[in-house]
Amino acid sequence: MSVQPIDKRRLEELEKALLAKAMPPGSLGELARLAVRIALITPKGLSRLSLLLFAGDHGIHAEGITHSPQEITAQQCVNFAKGGGACALFARCNGVDLTVVDMGVDHTFSPSDGVVDCKVGFGTENFLVSKAMDDEQCLTAMGFGKVQVRKKKQAGFDAIAFGEMGVGNTTSASAIAAAITGLSVRSVTGKGSGLSDEDLEHKCTVLERALARHPSRSPLDVLASFGGFEIAAIAGGIIEAASFSMPVLLDGFITTAAALISCALEPACKDYIIPCHLSAFDGHDLLLNYLDLPHPVLSLGMQLGEGTGALSAWPIIRAASRILPEMTSFEVGGVTDSTALLQEKGIVL
Amino acid sequence: MSVQPIDKRRLEELEKALLAKAMPPGSLGELARLAVRIALITPKGLSRLSLLLFAGDHGIHAEGITHSPQEITAQQCVNFAKGGGACALFARCNGVDLTVVDMGVDHTFSPSDGVVDCKVGFGTENFLVSKAMDDEQCLTAMGFGKVQVRKKKQAGFDAIAFGEMGVGNTTSASAIAAAITGLSVRSVTGKGSGLSDEDLEHKCTVLERALARHPSRSPLDVLASFGGFEIAAIAGGIIEAASFSMPVLLDGFITTAAALISCALEPACKDYIIPCHLSAFDGHDLLLNYLDLPHPVLSLGMQLGEGTGALSAWPIIRAASRILPEMTSFEVGGVTDSTALLQEKGIVL
Repeated sequence: MSVQPIDKRRLEELEKALLAKAMPPGSLGELARLAVRIALITPKGLSRLSLLLFAGDHGIHAEGITHSPQEITAQQCVNFAKGGGACALFARCNGVDLTVVDMGVDHTFSPSDGVVDCKVGFGTENFLVSKAMDDEQCLTAMGFGKVQVRKKKQAGFDAIAFGEMGVGNTTSASAIAAAITGLSVRSVTGKGSGLSDEDLEHKCTVLERALARHPSRSPLDVLASFGGFEIAAIAGGIIEAASFSMPVLLDGFITTAAALISCALEPACKDYIIPCHLSAFDGHDLLLNYLDLPHPVLSLGMQLGEGTGALSAWPIIRAASRILPEMTSFEVGGVTDSTALLQEKGIVL
Repeated sequence: MSVQPIDKRRLEELEKALLAKAMPPGSLGELARLAVRIALITPKGLSRLSLLLFAGDHGIHAEGITHSPQEITAQQCVNFAKGGGACALFARCNGVDLTVVDMGVDHTFSPSDGVVDCKVGFGTENFLVSKAMDDEQCLTAMGFGKVQVRKKKQAGFDAIAFGEMGVGNTTSASAIAAAITGLSVRSVTGKGSGLSDEDLEHKCTVLERALARHPSRSPLDVLASFGGFEIAAIAGGIIEAASFSMPVLLDGFITTAAALISCALEPACKDYIIPCHLSAFDGHDLLLNYLDLPHPVLSLGMQLGEGTGALSAWPIIRAASRILPEMTSFEVGGVTDSTALLQEKGIVL
């Protein structure tokens, strides 16, 4: 195992430190719980987030599981890399580094597009016909994800988030989710970017056939069977970040499907994951529950991907991470601790 | 009326502009609704928030409605102004200007404390005995709130939030809430900073006696009867900000009680208010419903006051405000609009 579980023996000490901060106990709600969770991962307050946005195309697109033309994947990569799109806007607003990485888009980018080249193929195979990737492609894509995280670690970033772009990738993610968790296809499949009820029915039928076609449930087989390259890169990236004790800001449905693979391979990954946003995409809550993760920081009804959930939660997570290291205590701030006064009088509320 | 309602005729145009942005329709959830709400207030994306933190002491403290000693109000003002406390930490993390204003703390600050002097008195009167403020004090406190907002407007800030510090001020806020809305005392009164069930019972009894003692329900009478100086400053400040068409980031229970007064005096204020955080304090949701405001951006279980809810939501509101003015459209971003393609084929989802 390359990922070590966090040392939970410090929990009591951290909760005591929180009670000494100059505010009534419990008044920071979820932010206090976040503060402790982050402090168990890393003692320093967070200041620099890097968002790695991995992109890839999907052979399953041929089965008509989305109305979006595949060309949108490549177009959006260029748009994002040039500062367009919600992800680039939110990254700019919140001071987050954004790197767009081509893991396997069905397009040849030009160097001026500003997209980092980690191409493993021109889209995955149709997983109704064969495995989406062969085992070598799968490991290569995971490895590229790890390398990108390592670079960001070396560049001084202290937190990592993952985004994704890939027309059809909710189908890939739902297949992985159903295969790993054993939940029904229906419970972890949504309409994504605008499907009708009939379209959703078709998508579920495709998924059920695919799950029957690829019966192995070992994590690497599941990942190779249902792909995508971008999901494999995220799965590898989460493991690498956790092995460095970097907090992983978990975005939405697709990155959570990737996290299912990471946690199946390295269970301690879960200790480093901070769920950021509850997606409007059906089944996201089921995956978070399966991983026994805390409730996401935000619930804004988004289902865009691109890392927008992680980007939106980052300022809150950053502020929470600094409560324990930076906020003044009653003593340092020169503020009377009324709870302590009551306790001295023998009053416990 | 000094506050003009927003021009809702632009709604359709703004929603059309949102659909042209390079993303699937509806994929930004609440952020899209926020984007439109803010664009109706001001066409430019927001970039500079000022938090005015008003402080005051409360004569009702003598009735034992809290276990916190009154000295904490003054101590925290100094702590905040020197960069301590959750409000100063969150302001620093999110690039927000923080100004601590003494509206009526029972303490004489020294110039080196860094607290702005707008003192109207050394704490309000006990509102079981007399009105918390006389009418002149009430208008003066509201006027000081307006002046502080005007200064921030002149200094180039494009959004305003209010925070408060005042031991005992949840009691003042609950009295105002019950008086303005007609809701029962019990439904708008919480345990605040750590009360027992018996303490809460006592607090409600004090409030019921106070409401009977001051029967006028005109907004200014309610404000003067139940105080505090800091709540009056916020009530005035909200009106001033709305008259400048500045978005008002609404914090928690106490600032919402102040907003009840502002909106009773100038109903169009409501158009400029963005609820930021649903407080864990009982009754906050009832006040927001009474004002017919949208659901708050965040629900993190906090009940600290100090403007921490507004500070936590600010980066999300700032990002949302820039979606319409800054985000690339399908056309500019060179991205295929698959929804438009479907519509051309006569398919409506």
